[in-house]
Amino acid sequence: MSLNTPPPDRLSLTLNALADPTRRAILARLSLGETTVNELAEPFEMSLPAVSKHLKVLERAGLISRTRTAQWRPCKLEPEPLKEVDMWLRDYRKMWEQRLDRLEAYLKELQAKDTPVQSAKPKDDKDGDIK
Amino acid sequence: MSLNTPPPDRLSLTLNALADPTRRAILARLSLGETTVNELAEPFEMSLPAVSKHLKVLERAGLISRTRTAQWRPCKLEPEPLKEVDMWLRDYRKMWEQRLDRLEAYLKELQAKDTPVQSAKPKDDKDGDIK
Repeated sequence: MSLNTPPPDRLSLTLNALADPTRRAILARLSLGETTVNELAEPFEMSLPAVSKHLKVLERAGLISRTRTAQWRPCKLEPEPLKEVDMWLRDYRKMWEQRLDRLEAYLKELQAKDTPVQSAKPKDDKDGDIK
Repeated sequence: MSLNTPPPDRLSLTLNALADPTRRAILARLSLGETTVNELAEPFEMSLPAVSKHLKVLERAGLISRTRTAQWRPCKLEPEPLKEVDMWLRDYRKMWEQRLDRLEAYLKELQAKDTPVQSAKPKDDKDGDIK
């Protein structure tokens, strides 16, 4: 039973936080620089509580940090969890790159098989003509 | 209101499917080759219905496909949605790589400032001695 519902891990927390277009749009905005919650809410035409809810999910995943001391409490993007997603993807990236390499090798093999035939054919024809 | 609850998009669907350690483990297993649901269930010590539930989420996100014709209905990893996550990450990867580049440039600048002072100093001293 406990295996069916494993405790939340950091990568799952990150992926879950990213699984929302508004939260990804907030991150995209923050990648341009620190900003306040009010500034963040503007382009999304969302209420402040709605934005705050999204920010809480992002903060819990460590994707953003909020300065506690400054009065305007700016939000800042923290790329570390994204790097972890990138690390996780690395093996799969290798997989599809290897698939591409194999496809490329196969195509080259086909071309190599083709080339002698093409260059040999006119020669054979010529020989044929001479004969 | 509708902006607060946007309709599910493909990337969100993928990220949500990946936000579970068991589902990621299933994908890791499938990256080694096609397999049946029974074989998949074994290492996870999970019931078949529990595995089937996870497979449905993965299938809905397009991360796996299941052959309908073959009697043993093998599951197969489909890397396309992972490539989309990789594409989405690209801008952020650039961001932290640029940060590293800037840090490197700054360190080089510091070293460059250090080096002439060290090599110039004895010269200045010499000139001073001559005067």
